[in-house]
Amino acid sequence: MTCAVAAARCTAARALLGGYKAGTTLRCVTMAPSYCVTLRDVQEAQRRIQGLVHTTPVMTSSSLDALAARNLFFKCELLQKTGSFKIRGAVNAVKSLPADKCTAVVTHSSGNHGQALALAAQMMGIPAHVVVPTTAATCKKSAILGYGALIVDCEPTDKSRAEVAAQTVQKTGGVLIHPNQDPAVIAGQGTIGLEVLQQAIKPDIKIYAAEPLNADDCYRAKMSGVLTPNLQPPVTVADGVKTSIGPNTWPIIRDEVDEVFVVTEDEIKNATRLVWERMKLLIEPTAGLGLATILSRQFQEKTRDIQNIGVVLCGGNVDLGSIDWLKQP
Amino acid sequence: MTCAVAAARCTAARALLGGYKAGTTLRCVTMAPSYCVTLRDVQEAQRRIQGLVHTTPVMTSSSLDALAARNLFFKCELLQKTGSFKIRGAVNAVKSLPADKCTAVVTHSSGNHGQALALAAQMMGIPAHVVVPTTAATCKKSAILGYGALIVDCEPTDKSRAEVAAQTVQKTGGVLIHPNQDPAVIAGQGTIGLEVLQQAIKPDIKIYAAEPLNADDCYRAKMSGVLTPNLQPPVTVADGVKTSIGPNTWPIIRDEVDEVFVVTEDEIKNATRLVWERMKLLIEPTAGLGLATILSRQFQEKTRDIQNIGVVLCGGNVDLGSIDWLKQP
Repeated sequence: MTCAVAAARCTAARALLGGYKAGTTLRCVTMAPSYCVTLRDVQEAQRRIQGLVHTTPVMTSSSLDALAARNLFFKCELLQKTGSFKIRGAVNAVKSLPADKCTAVVTHSSGNHGQALALAAQMMGIPAHVVVPTTAATCKKSAILGYGALIVDCEPTDKSRAEVAAQTVQKTGGVLIHPNQDPAVIAGQGTIGLEVLQQAIKPDIKIYAAEPLNADDCYRAKMSGVLTPNLQPPVTVADGVKTSIGPNTWPIIRDEVDEVFVVTEDEIKNATRLVWERMKLLIEPTAGLGLATILSRQFQEKTRDIQNIGVVLCGGNVDLGSIDWLKQP
Repeated sequence: MTCAVAAARCTAARALLGGYKAGTTLRCVTMAPSYCVTLRDVQEAQRRIQGLVHTTPVMTSSSLDALAARNLFFKCELLQKTGSFKIRGAVNAVKSLPADKCTAVVTHSSGNHGQALALAAQMMGIPAHVVVPTTAATCKKSAILGYGALIVDCEPTDKSRAEVAAQTVQKTGGVLIHPNQDPAVIAGQGTIGLEVLQQAIKPDIKIYAAEPLNADDCYRAKMSGVLTPNLQPPVTVADGVKTSIGPNTWPIIRDEVDEVFVVTEDEIKNATRLVWERMKLLIEPTAGLGLATILSRQFQEKTRDIQNIGVVLCGGNVDLGSIDWLKQP
């Protein structure tokens, strides 16, 4: 089910691309039972979070359409509460907790899920403990604190995140809400897919994933057919996709994503700058992955028959104090 | 007529603020005959430009509402065609030309009106000659060229702009479309006022103007009661308001603007950064004037009874290559 695939990719903070040709039927309407979420989970999440998150607009740009030689539909999740789509999954997860478990939550996050869970917990009147790598953007940490959550430092590795989070769960008695493997989080993020289908895109689509060449675990997994996490902490301007995909999202990506494209750091920076200049939308570089892919020679050559492309601008939490990359050639 | 006052202020590229209290009636519904535009001119302009310009959204931000202790309604003209509201006046002016005069247009502009007139001329299939100060932002010059117009250089003074424009009219036989004194331009910009009334703000309003302390000709004119242009080229990060107000806009501002507030460069930068961070909207510093004023102590103290405030985010043409000011403390 393509919406849920979208969900899966969102959960892993990948930029989403959905291209479609009009006049055909939905490729697949139910999730395979081996997936951790079903279409119904996503639909229930949509009802659960309604009124608590924004229905973000879909915007277009004739100037970027001309550059891409396609019609582009940008789903503006940077205008979402907390500045990224992550609030969808966080609210769904917290609201899905049974009453006796809904006393505190814990997570590890490079920032956007941390902010989102902080606000979701604040909405429900419970404390949130957020494990954040010491390398995370300052603005993201400030925002987490601003939503009343407590920050617990960890090293910038998947291993350290998981260990410190587990310790925090033990100490606080809170429930761990994993940033991208919790099924309720995945279902919440999938509501982007439902909304885009309602707003702009017909439901006969292909699903393309976009990833930095410097953090290409998803690409390598698709090539090899085996889940292969990044061995080293990736170095990329797209800080939202430094974490690897996990066991709950991998089967959906394996079966339902048509292709994964990788783009260079320069391509990501160029696309981010284009969205800033032409659309006046302050996306974070991770949200530039989609346009970077669309403008890449590889994508342009492989997808000539696709005229309409949906792109999720996943977030806008830019650390304005560290945008030196903008001026690099 | 407050809409047309809005028009006048927009024309001079001032950020607009309209505060209102609900439940009362329109302050004034007709323009005095001494003004160069009437309400009917603005209404006709709205019909003339319909479908050729965007109806831009009005956005809100709970975080900025909290900072301002008011409800703020941001009219997003940075998302307008050419990245600013100036396309409204340009299209209205070019479409208002009699058929035998509609062969070429000329203007002088620090950028946004230049881009707008370039696109308006391109829409009508006629050439545009744009006189631009040598100090104008690179991105603005590139955009003017991108819309197929020809750039004519001038010095960054009101005098040089006017002289070079007059020479260009003589050379090319084009019609001069003044960036802020042409009545058709003023009427076109006034359509923002009509739209905001339709979208967000009830028509019993006060009109406040916002201006940099470093380019305060409007403030000084209101204080003295006499039109008093800036004597020196102003130095301000808000490059869209370096030009002085003129004889056609001054009577409207004199009679209809309730008060002019001035803000410092630091206040403008801080407000611009806040809109970037909290709203993810890449406004140009000139568009930060409105929020800067609202957050100023002077405005907060003088307008305690006003709960709802409309703010025009007039444009988003930021020269990304020259944003050093962002990092200054």
